[in-house]
Amino acid sequence: MRRSIATVSLSGTLRQKLEAVAAAGFDGVELFEPDFTHFPGSAADLGRMAADLGLTIDLFQPFRDFEAMPPEAFTRSLDRAERKFDLMQAMGVPLMLCCSNTSPLCVDAPALAAEQLHALADRAARRGLRVGFEALAWGRHTSLYGQAWDIVRRADHPALGLILDSFHTLSLRDDPAGIADIPGDKIFFLQMADAPLMSLDVLQWARHHRSFPGQGDFDVVGFYEQVLLAGYSGPLSLEIFNDVFRETPNRRTAVDAMRSLLYLESQVRERLTARAAAPEPDARAASALALRGLAEPPAAPAFAGFAFIEFAADEATAPQLDVQLRQLGFRRVGRHRSKAATLYRQGDIAMIVNAEPASFARSRFELHGPSVCALGLRAAQPQAAQDRAVALCSQRHRSPLGPGEVEVPAIVSPGGNLMHFVDAALGPDGLFAADFVLDEGQAPDAGLQRVDHVALGLNLDQYDTWTLFTRAVLGLSLAESQELADPFGLVRSRAAADASRSLRLVLNASLSRRTLTARAVNRRGDGGVHHIAFACEDIFDAVARLRARGVAFLPISPNYYDDLPTRFDIEPALLARMREAGVLFDRSADGDFLHIYTRAADEGLFFEVVQRIGAYDGYGAANSAARMAAQAQA
Amino acid sequence: MRRSIATVSLSGTLRQKLEAVAAAGFDGVELFEPDFTHFPGSAADLGRMAADLGLTIDLFQPFRDFEAMPPEAFTRSLDRAERKFDLMQAMGVPLMLCCSNTSPLCVDAPALAAEQLHALADRAARRGLRVGFEALAWGRHTSLYGQAWDIVRRADHPALGLILDSFHTLSLRDDPAGIADIPGDKIFFLQMADAPLMSLDVLQWARHHRSFPGQGDFDVVGFYEQVLLAGYSGPLSLEIFNDVFRETPNRRTAVDAMRSLLYLESQVRERLTARAAAPEPDARAASALALRGLAEPPAAPAFAGFAFIEFAADEATAPQLDVQLRQLGFRRVGRHRSKAATLYRQGDIAMIVNAEPASFARSRFELHGPSVCALGLRAAQPQAAQDRAVALCSQRHRSPLGPGEVEVPAIVSPGGNLMHFVDAALGPDGLFAADFVLDEGQAPDAGLQRVDHVALGLNLDQYDTWTLFTRAVLGLSLAESQELADPFGLVRSRAAADASRSLRLVLNASLSRRTLTARAVNRRGDGGVHHIAFACEDIFDAVARLRARGVAFLPISPNYYDDLPTRFDIEPALLARMREAGVLFDRSADGDFLHIYTRAADEGLFFEVVQRIGAYDGYGAANSAARMAAQAQA
Repeated sequence: MRRSIATVSLSGTLRQKLEAVAAAGFDGVELFEPDFTHFPGSAADLGRMAADLGLTIDLFQPFRDFEAMPPEAFTRSLDRAERKFDLMQAMGVPLMLCCSNTSPLCVDAPALAAEQLHALADRAARRGLRVGFEALAWGRHTSLYGQAWDIVRRADHPALGLILDSFHTLSLRDDPAGIADIPGDKIFFLQMADAPLMSLDVLQWARHHRSFPGQGDFDVVGFYEQVLLAGYSGPLSLEIFNDVFRETPNRRTAVDAMRSLLYLESQVRERLTARAAAPEPDARAASALALRGLAEPPAAPAFAGFAFIEFAADEATAPQLDVQLRQLGFRRVGRHRSKAATLYRQGDIAMIVNAEPASFARSRFELHGPSVCALGLRAAQPQAAQDRAVALCSQRHRSPLGPGEVEVPAIVSPGGNLMHFVDAALGPDGLFAADFVLDEGQAPDAGLQRVDHVALGLNLDQYDTWTLFTRAVLGLSLAESQELADPFGLVRSRAAADASRSLRLVLNASLSRRTLTARAVNRRGDGGVHHIAFACEDIFDAVARLRARGVAFLPISPNYYDDLPTRFDIEPALLARMREAGVLFDRSADGDFLHIYTRAADEGLFFEVVQRIGAYDGYGAANSAARMAAQAQA
Repeated sequence: MRRSIATVSLSGTLRQKLEAVAAAGFDGVELFEPDFTHFPGSAADLGRMAADLGLTIDLFQPFRDFEAMPPEAFTRSLDRAERKFDLMQAMGVPLMLCCSNTSPLCVDAPALAAEQLHALADRAARRGLRVGFEALAWGRHTSLYGQAWDIVRRADHPALGLILDSFHTLSLRDDPAGIADIPGDKIFFLQMADAPLMSLDVLQWARHHRSFPGQGDFDVVGFYEQVLLAGYSGPLSLEIFNDVFRETPNRRTAVDAMRSLLYLESQVRERLTARAAAPEPDARAASALALRGLAEPPAAPAFAGFAFIEFAADEATAPQLDVQLRQLGFRRVGRHRSKAATLYRQGDIAMIVNAEPASFARSRFELHGPSVCALGLRAAQPQAAQDRAVALCSQRHRSPLGPGEVEVPAIVSPGGNLMHFVDAALGPDGLFAADFVLDEGQAPDAGLQRVDHVALGLNLDQYDTWTLFTRAVLGLSLAESQELADPFGLVRSRAAADASRSLRLVLNASLSRRTLTARAVNRRGDGGVHHIAFACEDIFDAVARLRARGVAFLPISPNYYDDLPTRFDIEPALLARMREAGVLFDRSADGDFLHIYTRAADEGLFFEVVQRIGAYDGYGAANSAARMAAQAQA
């Protein structure tokens, strides 16, 4: 299984790109011509640099608008091609990509296109090179892979084959099913790209908004499956034009890219395995499986909620968190056996305040001040969950253990905080009984029962990284992205949840540098926890108890409550209670949602209390503008 | 002339928005409903707050999907309308905006739409209120103003009129000419919006990318002209949904908004004046001119190049600039009579290094370090140029004068640097002969003859501000925006030039925080000079002289020169000279362009030497990726 990536997918100088790509474990690159044109060395220098890094240069795309042209333009193009073949030989690149023509001079004549491509392939073959022809979605007369294949078939030259790119097929909603019928050895190269669904001109969409497979909305798995059924055995490559990737640090982009391919492979492997094991087994699926080293990470974890949320603190800030948590109805129930860490409990919720010097938590504290540094997730098979994460390019984390303490598999999540996978079989107290000295004393709580969701604040260039991380590594499913209006700019937001809805994460990234979300990310770091929502059974009771304990909630405008009955049919008594308590309301076809936010001190963390009624599955996004306006006024 | 703006056009809380709008001299606002819903006070409180600021609330748009609905939905909407009328009365808002329906429940029945809008207007009239109906470009059955007018006409109710929005008409490329035939008193309100031309779904375009008139590509002047010809005499208002404005500091947005309206008015006044003075005078134009107080700033200046470029320095950095300028072939020709400022000359170019303590230059130096703090522009009528700028919301600047010094009218440009308007009649030396003690000594120069262009580095939220400033205040014409690929992200760029091409400014704004442009803006401030290009007659001679003086140029990859002849038909001898000298090449239909960049020390200012051949009118944008890649490698 050879994995490749186009140099245009990453930021930086060409040397930096190749270094990042090699470090992420790729075998090769597609060379984007401007990267070479600006490279301060010769073609041979570049070939050596790539080889020294253990990379091949698999593909070069040096020009456009070749086929189906008037004779004079064609002759000029053949001359240009010879110069580019010189470069390819010096660099050691075996394959040239030729895209379908977009020029107004191009004629609608597949026979001429085939004849001219035949001539090009003939020139290439004399030098031991090959040419691949690809249908661009906005090609003038050839925009579908079926048309491109027809031309390649007519040309009938051993050095001419087809190049496939999932973007061009899926953006036009063309059916990839016909690919399986193309002879695999006539498919010379495969480029995979995903994209969000957008109402945008296809050229703009392609040039600015592609994403790695698993980050967008396309059925990239189905596309790849057809290519493997065809018998294709060449490299699997990524050619991603994305404005955000252009500025994302290239090491992170390269890791995302590799995670994306491994995840894609694992999904298609499942599909092929099912085909091969069907009552009427598909022989093409079996031979594709035999041929290729498709990645096979352990299955995605089955989650059973949050085991704990850990705060980084020091001696000075731990007492402040203590006050805040106890005000929220948590009781201090234990001290860690070997670390300066304190456990707080309420209902099913566990919060740990870790002020241990020279610990991982302290290193996060020193970067970001008091903040969440780790999430504990209850998983049915914690070791497999960690192994999957590591197989999909996450970094394993091992904490030093005291005597008798439980080893909890952990990984570093994007942005640098930890995720621990806690054995769900341990039950709500098991982990803590082993690691903490527990004081079973009781105190009245506030009725908060479990963590409903944890919202993360991300830099914009981490949004796609987290989309892929939650989907691929954690196996969560993602809701659609929405854009929420803060008084100082837009915030992009989407939720990720497991099938049982025991584990919900909300990803928030500000498009502006001036929103509260952006300022929180500046303060608590990329992937830091933005707020924590607790679920309860009776929000009015919980709010009353919390207010009595001195918790201050975000004040909501009376106009909000005047407007609510013009949007929803709500019982006047319930409306009056919400108005009095300051509780927000949302409704979907499946149920109702009542929620309220605490006031945040100086851009710090805040909390939310929620009550889900019926099968409401959202997060009150319709109220986020009210929340952010109130926060700006507070 | 009443001027208004929708609260959705600005960032901030509602109070901050109204304060900014009042400070910029607006008479009223359109209230965006969420701004009210999140306002922490009652409708009456809001009405009082606006009145205290000297603002009226001219329009409220509280709901959608009203007309042409089934009876049950219609009855519910009428009930909702009564609640919104309550609010309008409490706030003192006379007019409700009702947009054409987008609901799938809406039926294609203009008669029903008219009947239901008649009923709504009747309810409004009972309270002394009015209703305006507007065609949304994506309305289900009503998307054109002609259709909306047909419905209003059929409804035939004195409290029902038409609302026009230039975006909805111009985005659909509908002809605004029919507007002039609508009775002016039936047009209840006018919203003006411009937009860049985009291949985007009209709804997305409208919600994210509108701009103020003069910032986009629409013929907003022609639209407004038709509305005035109709006899409309109500407010001129701006309803701008723009993602960047959502985060731009609201005081700046409000000033841009006012500048935009005044500029729009001045343009339409010229058109109407021409119509009224035509051989067959247009009576409607004459009566529109009589009726309205359309803004009438002095005419746009006629420029004759750059008079000088002034650097802010202090005692320590002035000698460094001295070395750099003399290396570039400038000679030190004078000291200012009263200030610690030194004049450098070469050809027609004048550079001033100002190290005067407690001066404007020093205040800029303290903010940004050594940097350009002022541009001198030669204008035919400097006082009129300043008066126009002030009439269009720029701030007048007055420098303290020493005895016998020339008063030069100046303004503060966006971002805080100065622009001086220098009397073109003074000739190249006139200004300096008065203000400077000149030493007429000669020294060999490098053949640089005049400033070709000055490139500015902008924050993204200053890009539209500068687009409007250069177009409206300076009267320059703007080239299309392009996106240039830096190795660490995209840079948006457009050129502004006067008709004689003696004055050229290039506006650069980075979309990424990591490009060289973004880092330069961080360092030298918003609107700071990014680089300065000097024109010469023989670039190879100039480069040889500059190299001999020790100037270091940006190294260009040999691959660039290998690639050039595959793109252009170039004489081999010229190609060889360019390769040897490190000169870049571009060609348009009108001529050729040869240029080269100096190396910048640690993200500092750099210089460009250019030679224009024939009528080439660009800036070598095709080479910007090569330049930025070389800068990243250097």
